[in-house]
Amino acid sequence: MKIKVLGTGLTKFGELWDKSLLDLALDASLEAINNSQYTINDIHAVFVANMIYGKLANQDHLGTLVASNLGIKKPGFRVEGACASGGLAIHLAIQSLLAGTYKNILVVGAEKMTDVSISEITSALMGAGSEDERKAGLTFPGLYALMAKAHMQKYGTKKQHLAEVSVKNHFHASLNPKAQFQFEVSLEKALNSPCICDPFTLFDASPITDGAAAAVLSADLSSRRRAGSINNVYITGSAVATDTVDLSSRKSLTEITATKEAATAALKQAGAEIKDINVAEVHDCFTIAEILAMEDLGFCAKGEGGTFVSTGHTRLGGKMPVNTSGGLKACGHPVGATGVKQIVEITQQLRGQTGQRQVKNAKVGLTQNVGGTGATVVVHVLQN
Amino acid sequence: MKIKVLGTGLTKFGELWDKSLLDLALDASLEAINNSQYTINDIHAVFVANMIYGKLANQDHLGTLVASNLGIKKPGFRVEGACASGGLAIHLAIQSLLAGTYKNILVVGAEKMTDVSISEITSALMGAGSEDERKAGLTFPGLYALMAKAHMQKYGTKKQHLAEVSVKNHFHASLNPKAQFQFEVSLEKALNSPCICDPFTLFDASPITDGAAAAVLSADLSSRRRAGSINNVYITGSAVATDTVDLSSRKSLTEITATKEAATAALKQAGAEIKDINVAEVHDCFTIAEILAMEDLGFCAKGEGGTFVSTGHTRLGGKMPVNTSGGLKACGHPVGATGVKQIVEITQQLRGQTGQRQVKNAKVGLTQNVGGTGATVVVHVLQN
Repeated sequence: MKIKVLGTGLTKFGELWDKSLLDLALDASLEAINNSQYTINDIHAVFVANMIYGKLANQDHLGTLVASNLGIKKPGFRVEGACASGGLAIHLAIQSLLAGTYKNILVVGAEKMTDVSISEITSALMGAGSEDERKAGLTFPGLYALMAKAHMQKYGTKKQHLAEVSVKNHFHASLNPKAQFQFEVSLEKALNSPCICDPFTLFDASPITDGAAAAVLSADLSSRRRAGSINNVYITGSAVATDTVDLSSRKSLTEITATKEAATAALKQAGAEIKDINVAEVHDCFTIAEILAMEDLGFCAKGEGGTFVSTGHTRLGGKMPVNTSGGLKACGHPVGATGVKQIVEITQQLRGQTGQRQVKNAKVGLTQNVGGTGATVVVHVLQN
Repeated sequence: MKIKVLGTGLTKFGELWDKSLLDLALDASLEAINNSQYTINDIHAVFVANMIYGKLANQDHLGTLVASNLGIKKPGFRVEGACASGGLAIHLAIQSLLAGTYKNILVVGAEKMTDVSISEITSALMGAGSEDERKAGLTFPGLYALMAKAHMQKYGTKKQHLAEVSVKNHFHASLNPKAQFQFEVSLEKALNSPCICDPFTLFDASPITDGAAAAVLSADLSSRRRAGSINNVYITGSAVATDTVDLSSRKSLTEITATKEAATAALKQAGAEIKDINVAEVHDCFTIAEILAMEDLGFCAKGEGGTFVSTGHTRLGGKMPVNTSGGLKACGHPVGATGVKQIVEITQQLRGQTGQRQVKNAKVGLTQNVGGTGATVVVHVLQN
């Protein structure tokens, strides 16, 4: 398969109290359409990724709402799959393009999370988990902490390994003007910050974020941006895999098998191997999630994710830079936007447009977007 | 385009206090898979249509939740577009089938609405409307009442015309063992029931309903049910059209232009004309909506929807039977399920499986599923 990424758009991520969800979605969308050098008349459908705005602000029907507010009188769809909503929307838009029904599609992921209390948000996000998990009083920090504890026990992963993911991603975010946290943190600060859920400190968790990300995708491979100086970028692999929503029903706490399955399928579609990947954006909602992703994607062997990060391989300049945007940890995690933002970052890397955080000679990139504790995983492969 | 409907499943519609949303979704899904004579191993993706369960019960991530609870370890997606969620899920599943990515897809629409108070439900459903409409204190009875009033003023439509839609749909529901209201109502009773929002009485409004509907769709046209005695049914047209979510931004209160656009596109795909349709399920959330649908689909001229119903054309035995299931009015309206239920009813009509409410020699059927007050419309054409 081959789908062209014609344009990208991204709002600032952060606490954006002067913007509504619709403002954010429209800002990112118009930037993506403008970046594609198309006009709204060339867009044939709009896919909106959003998880929790219906709960928080009682606004559903976002596909048509965003489309009509853009002045696009075309089909609108909302796609939801918890924190994997963005990746799923990209995947379903691709299916509609491959079917030939729509030629150019705008996909926009958006979330507005900072207008309510932390307890409301924590409760709302548990909609991504299972009923039994909610009854047990679990939250996502708790669920991922269980996975981290199991990984530490089984493979000797240390708190320092977790903190090193955070330090690296904060460094990357310090180079990203759109990031929520554009500052570095020291290993000491990350390790000695307040514990939010053992073994996690504050710096092991991604923040609550407002933001939107958008991409214009096209089935017309001959379409071209008028500015000929930018590399064309194509999505060449798109796969989804699932597991039980309930973490306790999985066979293992220390691997996310859906990551393996989705990556295997997406790489096969792209005709690539994991060793061909030059840059990746993975779902580091908690630091352990990035370590699991390194292992389950096959960047390193099972159990060696911690040391793989420690050696600096995943830092800008390393052999396999991961989360150059700053990741969910430091760029921010507006849940419905995250999967689309990953596509935006990799596209801009492959175009050579990421300035100080540019990975040299990046030709093949990968995104991994997770829903829940790994119940849903979406992997995309992008190439020049 | 041509997609095969391999299997259908439908729960009883009504106040189902002993069933959870998941119970309902699994019941309809298993019935559809069994009816397709496939097994869960033959299903390659699961699309779940649902509007408000996240708000009412804090459970999101329904695509994967339903898939994994069925024992289907395959991609799961939730699609939402207010009361058009079901139709949109069918449309997107079809795109994935046409793309060749998935061969057989289970689409299940489900909603659990009777566990909360009427005021909670009324508020939650307004998520399908616009922020301005909510601020104005409008509800869907109010919005559709405005459309009815405008239609009455412009075209001389009478309260009796509205009531006749209800009487006809209750008659159809009296023949449908799955319907929420399996009883007839007299014209007098419908007209003299309490006013809920002028010009609507209680019998002009669809009820609050629990229920689920499912269909197994296949891109493999050679696949066949082992029981050879049942007619094959194909979806030959699938189109979505939109308008502003805000009713006040439309150019007219007396037509739903998205219905016209979606129907024109779907019929063109099917190579059919509106006069070829033998049976239709349309979105009668309020009685005026069915009258508008008659006109906007082209079954009668603009303004003549009321008399078209009065003459008995849309009653079983008439020249154009509409809502043989009982429609949203009398079969019930579990919002996420409705668009899928329409596909189930038309499939069973074209198979000749609807017993006392069978339309003789039904060969071509149509469904029209509406989100909000016509912001989103999905039309499907089905044929033997």
